[in-house]
Amino acid sequence: MFKIVKKALDDSMEPGIKLERYTVPGVKDLPIACKKLLEKQKCDICMALGMPGDQPIDKTCAHEASQGLINTQLQTNKHIIEVFIYLDEGKDKKELYKITKNRTYDHTINAIALLKSKNKLQKLAGKGIRQGSKNVGIIKE
Amino acid sequence: MFKIVKKALDDSMEPGIKLERYTVPGVKDLPIACKKLLEKQKCDICMALGMPGDQPIDKTCAHEASQGLINTQLQTNKHIIEVFIYLDEGKDKKELYKITKNRTYDHTINAIALLKSKNKLQKLAGKGIRQGSKNVGIIKE
Amino acid sequence: MFKIVKKALDDSMEPGIKLERYTVPGVKDLPIACKKLLEKQKCDICMALGMPGDQPIDKTCAHEASQGLINTQLQTNKHIIEVFIYLDEGKDKKELYKITKNRTYDHTINAIALLKSKNKLQKLAGKGIRQGSKNVGIIKE
Amino acid sequence: MFKIVKKALDDSMEPGIKLERYTVPGVKDLPIACKKLLEKQKCDICMALGMPGDQPIDKTCAHEASQGLINTQLQTNKHIIEVFIYLDEGKDKKELYKITKNRTYDHTINAIALLKSKNKLQKLAGKGIRQGSKNVGIIKE
Amino acid sequence: MFKIVKKALDDSMEPGIKLERYTVPGVKDLPIACKKLLEKQKCDICMALGMPGDQPIDKTCAHEASQGLINTQLQTNKHIIEVFIYLDEGKDKKELYKITKNRTYDHTINAIALLKSKNKLQKLAGKGIRQGSKNVGIIKE
Repeated sequence: MFKIVKKALDDSMEPGIKLERYTVPGVKDLPIACKKLLEKQKCDICMALGMPGDQPIDKTCAHEASQGLINTQLQTNKHIIEVFIYLDEGKDKKELYKITKNRTYDHTINAIALLKSKNKLQKLAGKGIRQGSKNVGIIKE
Repeated sequence: MFKIVKKALDDSMEPGIKLERYTVPGVKDLPIACKKLLEKQKCDICMALGMPGDQPIDKTCAHEASQGLINTQLQTNKHIIEVFIYLDEGKDKKELYKITKNRTYDHTINAIALLKSKNKLQKLAGKGIRQGSKNVGIIKE
Repeated sequence: MFKIVKKALDDSMEPGIKLERYTVPGVKDLPIACKKLLEKQKCDICMALGMPGDQPIDKTCAHEASQGLINTQLQTNKHIIEVFIYLDEGKDKKELYKITKNRTYDHTINAIALLKSKNKLQKLAGKGIRQGSKNVGIIKE
Repeated sequence: MFKIVKKALDDSMEPGIKLERYTVPGVKDLPIACKKLLEKQKCDICMALGMPGDQPIDKTCAHEASQGLINTQLQTNKHIIEVFIYLDEGKDKKELYKITKNRTYDHTINAIALLKSKNKLQKLAGKGIRQGSKNVGIIKE
Repeated sequence: MFKIVKKALDDSMEPGIKLERYTVPGVKDLPIACKKLLEKQKCDICMALGMPGDQPIDKTCAHEASQGLINTQLQTNKHIIEVFIYLDEGKDKKELYKITKNRTYDHTINAIALLKSKNKLQKLAGKGIRQGSKNVGIIKE
């Protein structure tokens, strides 16, 4: 997943973005790793990349990680973009790879946008856009 | 959903309300965005607008976002009105739009009321009022 | 529910109790409202009155509200007595009203007791007492 | 349950242990009560005694209480031993009483051990010991 | 489980690692114990070893413990490696022991790696590695 982030960053041709990487054993170790990156390494934003398994216990772990990531954001006053791909999201490894690639790529673009301004993503709001899977479309009167 | 908020504000004819908008990729990014609006932009109240999907994972995301929004309120000492519409709340897109419009509109009115005084909503309490869907009615002796 | 609290207070004939009321749109708005009452209005105790719906999403909302209320207590070092009545607790509106009345009334008495001393409720402990519904009785050797 | 704690303390013949009691309406009121005991009454450890009902809502309440008790420990830097007995743990009142007595008694001994040193319980670790119910045994190569 | 940690540490031949042990009654007592080890004993990292039972209530306890452990990490700015083995993970005691041994051993190696640098585990990332059970493999284009 890190390679996809790197490619999206390269493609964006944003100048002056420096990338720090922190590898942890599992998704539940992500909150503290992000906190260290945001506070000690003075990063401006984090992407929390993880691929939880397909068992009930893995969903629980991911849920706990997500709660921790939200708390970390509130403690650091910075965004963390969570990019979790569940092993049961795709019907086979090929589809899973595609979801992984799209979601990670799109969320890297989102992360860059959030760094720029709070309205950068405005034109995409309310369009039912889902990163890595089919969009759900717009609803209107 | 933002347009509906804007319309409700215009209809209310409340003078001197300034509106700030912050667009994020998903509902789990709302807590930190609200925190920034309440603390850095010095907003007095937030409306957290989101439309979670209809899958179990989407419910979990919304649950995590809601917990984060409550924590954000406790940290900032300000109200955040959560307006989430679930994609499976309506039987079709038309009904979904209606729920979205009503709930968002009504909660904008609620937000204005909360800004004014802690008793502004008193006359509506205990009436079983549900924003965006059928009211459940009053119970009495 | 507020009227029942008021009646219980009147019946208790406790002198010098001043009552503040804060009305919010939904149960998830209760934690921040209680925090404001306890901190800004310098209330000594709160009663959080709510009537969540009977859908799964309503249970989730109530769960989030309850977690927020516990956090609020830990932040303010004061008690909040949660009085939630679920719309599916009674088989009809009449039974629901009875539960509402009993639970709210009894918890108002509990709130007064907690204000007085940490041992005021001691004689009722371990009796299987349930506010608003049938008591479950005592267990013994 | 308080009587069982008292008996276990007496049986332990530990000198100089002073016991403070705080009675609350329900398990969700335990976190704030423990916080007051640990901070204001300067207690060194708490035992949170509760007997949640057998309905789904009671499990949710106990879950919220447990989360609150863990947060309270992290805020006060002191142990709280949670002793919850669920009304559906025993097949009848007699069995329930036995579980209650054993779990409460054993956890009182645990509380005394934790007060003494961080290694006092070491010889019991990894033995599959369950307070109040059948032990699950040891696993080995 | 402690013996396995000790063996992994010995095998690693890392010089100068000092080991502190803290034994608690159950997994829900781990967060406060870790906090004390990280803050008062000035440990650099914790391993939280636990073996929750196979009942629903045990899963809930482990979930609460996990949330508490993540909060503890955010409060202390240090890693805690959670090593929980569920009694229903293995089909018999022999398999359970094997999972326990592998997961505990591997996570001890992870803990040592995290102490050294944030990139020490980098070469293992995205390989679908699961401590104590079958790896799930890599996904690629």
